[in-house]
This record gives sequence, structure tokens and C-alpha cells, in this order.
Amino acid sequence: MSIQCTFIGSGNLATRLALRMFEKGIAIKQVYSRNLDNAEALAKQIKAEGVSDPAKVNKQGIDLFIVALADKAYDEVLPYIDFGDKIVAHTAGSVPMKKLAESANTIGVFYPLQTFSKGRMVDFNEIPLCLEAESDEVLRFLEKVANIITDDVRVVSSEDRKQLHLAAVFCCNFVNHLYALCESIVNKADLNFDILRPLIKETASKIETLSPKEAQTGPAIRYDKNIINNHLDLLDEDENLKNVYELLTSSIFKLHNQ
Amino acid sequence: MSIQCTFIGSGNLATRLALRMFEKGIAIKQVYSRNLDNAEALAKQIKAEGVSDPAKVNKQGIDLFIVALADKAYDEVLPYIDFGDKIVAHTAGSVPMKKLAESANTIGVFYPLQTFSKGRMVDFNEIPLCLEAESDEVLRFLEKVANIITDDVRVVSSEDRKQLHLAAVFCCNFVNHLYALCESIVNKADLNFDILRPLIKETASKIETLSPKEAQTGPAIRYDKNIINNHLDLLDEDENLKNVYELLTSSIFKLHNQ
Repeated sequence: MSIQCTFIGSGNLATRLALRMFEKGIAIKQVYSRNLDNAEALAKQIKAEGVSDPAKVNKQGIDLFIVALADKAYDEVLPYIDFGDKIVAHTAGSVPMKKLAESANTIGVFYPLQTFSKGRMVDFNEIPLCLEAESDEVLRFLEKVANIITDDVRVVSSEDRKQLHLAAVFCCNFVNHLYALCESIVNKADLNFDILRPLIKETASKIETLSPKEAQTGPAIRYDKNIINNHLDLLDEDENLKNVYELLTSSIFKLHNQ
Repeated sequence: MSIQCTFIGSGNLATRLALRMFEKGIAIKQVYSRNLDNAEALAKQIKAEGVSDPAKVNKQGIDLFIVALADKAYDEVLPYIDFGDKIVAHTAGSVPMKKLAESANTIGVFYPLQTFSKGRMVDFNEIPLCLEAESDEVLRFLEKVANIITDDVRVVSSEDRKQLHLAAVFCCNFVNHLYALCESIVNKADLNFDILRPLIKETASKIETLSPKEAQTGPAIRYDKNIINNHLDLLDEDENLKNVYELLTSSIFKLHNQ
């Protein structure tokens, strides 16, 4: 018996997850989004129906509703969908499972710990899929689905998931922002960002064999005042870059001199 | 005719570069370090002599002195070495070439744009080697050496090198520090850092196909106040983490709403 699924949401995560499920033979019946174009853009890739009216979301024959909405959209969307007693699992790092109890009877969490962009394929096999469920029966079902799409399935409580999501902001969102700041520095100097790509790659690869503390290099760890002051002079026209430089430099120094 | 080289310095960069040169058939005659144990630890791996007395550095038969010292050590070491008219090239991102003119007659720069740790092998073929020289003749010699050890040889002025080094601090040193802060969050919550490795890897890989601005995800770009405040609550006991979180969140928001 094949699994039938409906997606509530059509953003980056919904898109990559739905495509992966479809590729692995899970049937997706509907994609709901408040914006019909977005719903249909995803739906047509996975032979599903796109809908933008919550009343049109059909629970008939569905084994699993995947809720992949921005956290702040939950209250604007979920109360208007009739889930009946079907399993409803959200995909958010930061939302406690019990939030779903306001709009659904049978609930769980299906959180892939990864960064997703619509236009970028990602190797799903090695994505940790963090599950949580209100009952063993629901958990077993979510495990069954998760095992179809990844090799790394884990049970993680709402409390732990919250901490992982916070940690992920540091090692993904903030890291990517440093790449962006770095790009703004080289662009301003009329240099090509490409020259930094091997460094970016090695910085990430390094911590596969060294702890981040062992891997640390650069002027901040030595507190090389001469270099640090030269760098701050170079950043003199950009208050924001300067603040980031100063705070992270002092944070590195603190960590290595505790 | 084989090239003969002597290293002034035995740190992370000196170690990886000397090992690479040795592997590629360049003879290393001596390794100087203020600490004899450090000099000998590297020297014995590359059939060289370790010395800690600047007067024992022998220019006889040497084609190239590589200066790989911490920036602040230049003045404490270089004036005490007799380089004669031999080529002396430093490996620092942040030191202008002309600094060497205080202690040497024939000068250049040989700067590998990469992060090095003693215990970690790195793929030298794809490291950008940034060269600068006071004359075409010296530049041609440095190019000859550089081409032996990498496929990516570039001529970069002192001014541009300074900007690249600053950019490298953001995308390497600061990025690695965010990994360290991330590790401190998961450790404190008694979780395993390993669960974040696929995310760290994908965050770096993503910008091979997307610009950092396109690749940005997370609560800060949406300015999701609810999540941001929850995260700040979780960080309440750690002033430093909280400051980093607030500054980078506002920096992301600014960049995407300029």
C-alpha cells in the first residue's frame, strides 16, 4: 500500500522535501499555499493538485499531512483546514509539537535538519530527520516514511529540537551571512569572490577531522593587535562590518583564554 | 637544477607548505624557529636541519628563503639573519612586501590563501598562491616555484592582498568561530555536534552554485520576531552568545532590506 501525503506550504523546505518524497514513490495528492501560483508551481512537479483555499484541502485517503509553513503562518492557516484524525506533522525546528494540537488531533514532527533553497538539489540520504510524535503508533508511521527518504532518522524531543535549531542558526544562517559580508569586501575592492572558494571549502571540511577549537586560526586567536587594528582601519567606512569584526574577534579571544 | 629553500618559521603554514615543497622535490636545507624543538620537529620530516640561532642560518646555495612568521615576530627575527642578495619571500596576507626591505635586498611575497593546521593535510593543487615581487626576474622565479606546488598561481598587489586577508578573516576565522559557538550550544544541551555536520557541509557547498545572498535562509532574513525572541531567551545566560546573535541577526536583516 503506497503512502499518500498532502503538503501544507510550498516554500524552500516543502519544495525539496516533496520532490524527494515523490522521487521515492510517495504519492503527493495536494499542495496548499495561500498563494495559488506557488502551490501550483510545486504541485505540477509532483503530479499533485495546487490549492489556495483551506476548505479545498481534502483529507480523504491521506495518511500524512506535512505542515511546512513559516512559523508565524500557523495560526493564519491551520485552524481553517479539516484534518480529521489524520496524522499532521510539522517540519519546523522552532515550533513545539503541541502547537499542532490547537488544530489537529493526531500530531507529530518531521524536521529535516538542513538548509533548503528551491533551486538547489541536496543529498537527502545524509540529512538527519528529527522525529517526534504524540504516540508510539504515530512515531512508527513517521519512522516508516522517514526511512524511505534518508538514512539518518532520529527521535528528538521538542526541547532538544529547539536547541538544535538555535545551533543551526549559528552554523548555517550566520555562517552564510559571513560569506555574504566577505563577498561585499571583495566586491568593494574589485576582486573576485572565487579566489576565496577553496578557503571556504577547507574551513568547513577541516572540522570533519578537527574540533572547531583546534581548527581556529587567524589574528584574533593570537590577539595580533597590529593586524586587528589594520583591519579595523580598512573597515572604517562601514559601521556594521566593523561591529561584526570587533565582536567576533573579542569572542574568539575569550573562547581561547577562558 | 633542483631548487634549494630554507624556511624561517615552523608554524601551521610553514609546516604544510614545507611538506608540500618537499613532496614535490624541492630541497629544504634549514628550518629556523626561535624554539629549537619546533624547528627540529618540522626539519626531521623534510630532511632539513633545525636551527634556533639566527646566526646559523646559512645562505650558501639557497635559492629562496620563505618567511612564515607571525607578523609581530618579523622585527624580532629578520634583522639577525644574513640573507645576502638571496630572494626572501614572506607568506603573510597582512604584511606589505616592502616590510621585507628592512632586512633583505631581494624580496617578494608567496601567500597561499588557505587555512592551515599542522595535523591536517590539505589539497594543495587548488590553493590560490598569491605572488608579488620587486622585479620581473624575482616574479618569474616565484612563479616557477609556485607552479610546482599548485595549479592556481596569481599575481596580487600588497593592497589587494590586504583586502583578501580581511575577507578571509570573515569567511574562515569568523566562520570557524561560529562552528565553535554552535558546538558550545549543543554541548551545553547534552547533544552531539555530529548531527550538525551535514548542515555545515551543505551551507558551504551551497555557495558553489548560489550567491551568499541567494543562499540565505533562517529566521533573521524573515525577521521572524517570535523565533528570534525565543532564541534570545535560550541564550539568556550567555551575554557573549546573545550579543553575537543580536548583531548578526540585525546585520542579515539590513543586508536584505537595503
